[in-house]
Amino acid sequence: MTHGAHPHVVPRHPRLDPLADRYAARTHGMKTSEIRALFSVVSRPEVVSLAGGMPAVTALPLDAVGSMIGDLVSGMGAQTLQYGSGQGDPRLRERICDVMALEGITDASPSEVVVTVGSQQGLDLVTRVFCDPGDVILAEGPSYVGALGVFQAAQARVRHVAMDDDGLIPEALEEALLDCRANGDRVKFLYTVPNFHNPAGVTLSEPRREAIVALAEKYDLLIIEDNPYGLLGFDREPMRALRARNNRRVIYLGSFSKTFSPGLRVGWVLAPLAVREKLVLATEAQVLCPPSLTQYAVARYLDTQPWREQIKLFAELYRERRDATLESLAALMPPGTVWTQPDGGFYVWLKLPHGLDAKLMQPRAVNAHVAYVPGIGFFADGNGREYMRLSYCYPEPDQIREGVRRLARVIEAELDLHSTFDAVDTGSFRAIGRPDALDSGTTIVGPANSDTYEDRR
Amino acid sequence: MTHGAHPHVVPRHPRLDPLADRYAARTHGMKTSEIRALFSVVSRPEVVSLAGGMPAVTALPLDAVGSMIGDLVSGMGAQTLQYGSGQGDPRLRERICDVMALEGITDASPSEVVVTVGSQQGLDLVTRVFCDPGDVILAEGPSYVGALGVFQAAQARVRHVAMDDDGLIPEALEEALLDCRANGDRVKFLYTVPNFHNPAGVTLSEPRREAIVALAEKYDLLIIEDNPYGLLGFDREPMRALRARNNRRVIYLGSFSKTFSPGLRVGWVLAPLAVREKLVLATEAQVLCPPSLTQYAVARYLDTQPWREQIKLFAELYRERRDATLESLAALMPPGTVWTQPDGGFYVWLKLPHGLDAKLMQPRAVNAHVAYVPGIGFFADGNGREYMRLSYCYPEPDQIREGVRRLARVIEAELDLHSTFDAVDTGSFRAIGRPDALDSGTTIVGPANSDTYEDRR
Ligand SMILES: Cc1ncc(COP(=O)(O)O)c(C=O)c1O
Ligand SMILES: Cc1ncc(COP(=O)(O)O)c(C=O)c1O
Repeated sequence: MTHGAHPHVVPRHPRLDPLADRYAARTHGMKTSEIRALFSVVSRPEVVSLAGGMPAVTALPLDAVGSMIGDLVSGMGAQTLQYGSGQGDPRLRERICDVMALEGITDASPSEVVVTVGSQQGLDLVTRVFCDPGDVILAEGPSYVGALGVFQAAQARVRHVAMDDDGLIPEALEEALLDCRANGDRVKFLYTVPNFHNPAGVTLSEPRREAIVALAEKYDLLIIEDNPYGLLGFDREPMRALRARNNRRVIYLGSFSKTFSPGLRVGWVLAPLAVREKLVLATEAQVLCPPSLTQYAVARYLDTQPWREQIKLFAELYRERRDATLESLAALMPPGTVWTQPDGGFYVWLKLPHGLDAKLMQPRAVNAHVAYVPGIGFFADGNGREYMRLSYCYPEPDQIREGVRRLARVIEAELDLHSTFDAVDTGSFRAIGRPDALDSGTTIVGPANSDTYEDRR
Repeated sequence: MTHGAHPHVVPRHPRLDPLADRYAARTHGMKTSEIRALFSVVSRPEVVSLAGGMPAVTALPLDAVGSMIGDLVSGMGAQTLQYGSGQGDPRLRERICDVMALEGITDASPSEVVVTVGSQQGLDLVTRVFCDPGDVILAEGPSYVGALGVFQAAQARVRHVAMDDDGLIPEALEEALLDCRANGDRVKFLYTVPNFHNPAGVTLSEPRREAIVALAEKYDLLIIEDNPYGLLGFDREPMRALRARNNRRVIYLGSFSKTFSPGLRVGWVLAPLAVREKLVLATEAQVLCPPSLTQYAVARYLDTQPWREQIKLFAELYRERRDATLESLAALMPPGTVWTQPDGGFYVWLKLPHGLDAKLMQPRAVNAHVAYVPGIGFFADGNGREYMRLSYCYPEPDQIREGVRRLARVIEAELDLHSTFDAVDTGSFRAIGRPDALDSGTTIVGPANSDTYEDRR
């Protein structure tokens, strides 16, 4: 056994894994998800799950999409059932450029696009191409749990940069860059989700976009802009992407998971040609090529179906669910609870009253038939215990209201329990929806915590 | 620029890649495929391509498959268009166990199966889970080019083990194991393709299967059994898999690419539970989950279509093409040319008369409108210049005959040219179909040559 060398790794059944001494170093950092068991509980029908990030795919015109895909196989089986190019179908890459134009990216060429198996694979490819073990990645605190999993697998170190209601804080970014420079740490890139952040629900403001792109120039910083939710705004036109402001320092990740279907697993990377070339080699080694059928399905969908109207329809549906969430939270949450006010996307980020721990509270919440994702999964450094992510994308408004009601009761019970032991300080809480900074983790830490890895289930 | 540190890497346009100094170490080993350009030539209709490994998917009942898939979307869109489990659809994993039973694997449980994006991803996941940079992988010489690409990306060192008409030579394997032990090299696993080898076209004999499994026990060796072609034999029932003989030391990779459709990208790994757990974490970090639609498509296909008969039909079709290949080779090849006699799968491995170089000859072959894959792509050590792989899976028998005719003429012209300069020694050639050992590379080398990376296009 390798306990001595890897003190943090306690194999569940060390004697049952005769290969335990043969794994790669990176494998020892992978932890079995503690909440995988919990999630099988969560999928019971009596539980209202505010945990998953599953899109409302049944709002699609399933008959039309079904016959469209059936025809693709019957009529073009020689292509749709065959191997394709590693970079992805050229026609789809053209249509992807049309989609990106909606966010102001008008100079992208299909040759700079690599189709991926979801944007998750895009993230993995970019990380593999750039990161050696020990390299530093800057990322918002909190960050998308799936990104932290990729960074951990690459044995990169994550340094969180604070954000607030206007997204990533440029001053905090500059401070982090200076710190890293002073320490001799090699920053490979900034990973950021500028729109309707997962899990924070906030959006990077226009002036901050300019400030961050300027910092990238000043500090020779590469930015990975991960943007699956950009077209799902409730109130206004999509904002201009970071990539639209700088095409040399920004690599852009896109996805059809939230605007069409996640079950097709079609995403993409837009990168300068030299990087694109590396990404193609990396994806060929990983999967040979993305599935042809799903790529043809997306391209045909964009060609023949009213996809812009469908996105509006999705946004309308998510807006209702967001409203149900925010109204119930405002009506029911005990004082001292604060949360963000998303105007797009899937998520609300909630901070518990002082002293409460979302992870410890979780079993009681599940007992009360409501589920969420504890905040610590979104930090690489063990921070975030007082936070949770609530997803409103999947349940109907009535279920959401019921879920929030149950959650409020659990929090109240928790508070009662606490006040029995010590007085809770409610004076220092931040105003609802206006936390000064969502978190300010400033230490650089090792492999990410992957406890809540299945948050999207 | 990093020329000093990486003498073998010559960026095509060094000054056009401002990020060149930011890549990971593994990325510098990735080479732009030299024959990518050639392959666009090869796809011209006047060229007979014996280069690609594309299955004959149009032999499928496309209408039936199309309406089956269309119904899956229309009727089950809530599942087929949604995220699924990282490990893969449980129902598909059950059916995969039925498929493996055809090769004598009767003790596999669906819980030990991980569905992957083609077996290529399975190979990548296994390699990531086990290999640190510098680790040694044993692999047949020659080996599947896509596997060498994975091993290179993992910065593993490949040591080739000689094979002959009966597949991998157990004595050569034992010698390699002893050598590595003596050198203090860490052997992480043996990678082997026991059935209808790509590119060698040979099959591991029954006694050798026993011998290799015994060696695995004796030397504590892990075996990765990669078996996409096992059900595509022309003359007899499938042979018993290595995994059927040992379930602790063999990790099995399977694929529906050759028995159904590569465009769906559905493969799998069968591994002991502890390893399976690591593989699931690794695939979640890489792609979250495999596409749901393609998994449902394969499961439904296995449930409702005559898939065993379809495999027989494929095998019949490939047998005709194999016959056309072998008959033309026997009739037309100049003396001194030798080749293997596949009784299943897609490939013939051909050795040129002494002094000829398949890679150097390639442009002339393409000029004569015939294409193949030069042998060096299948070696990690630069060996194999005198070999080429001929694929008979895709062209019709008449095209194959025409292609071999053109190839024979090119070889003859090459021989003429040579004999003008020096006498060609034809005395030492091995008998047709009975090379003593296909190759005997015994040095351990670094990153694989990925020149012929797109061999399957
Ligand atoms: C911020 C972010 N990036 C990437 C992904 C991965 O999405 P996909 O791989 O389905 O495109 C998600 C999914 O929830 C996400 O929230
Ligand atoms: C030996 C071998 N392994 C693996 C693969 C990858 O196949 P897939 O990823 O399509 O399952 C191939 C494809 O040609 C192969 O020949």
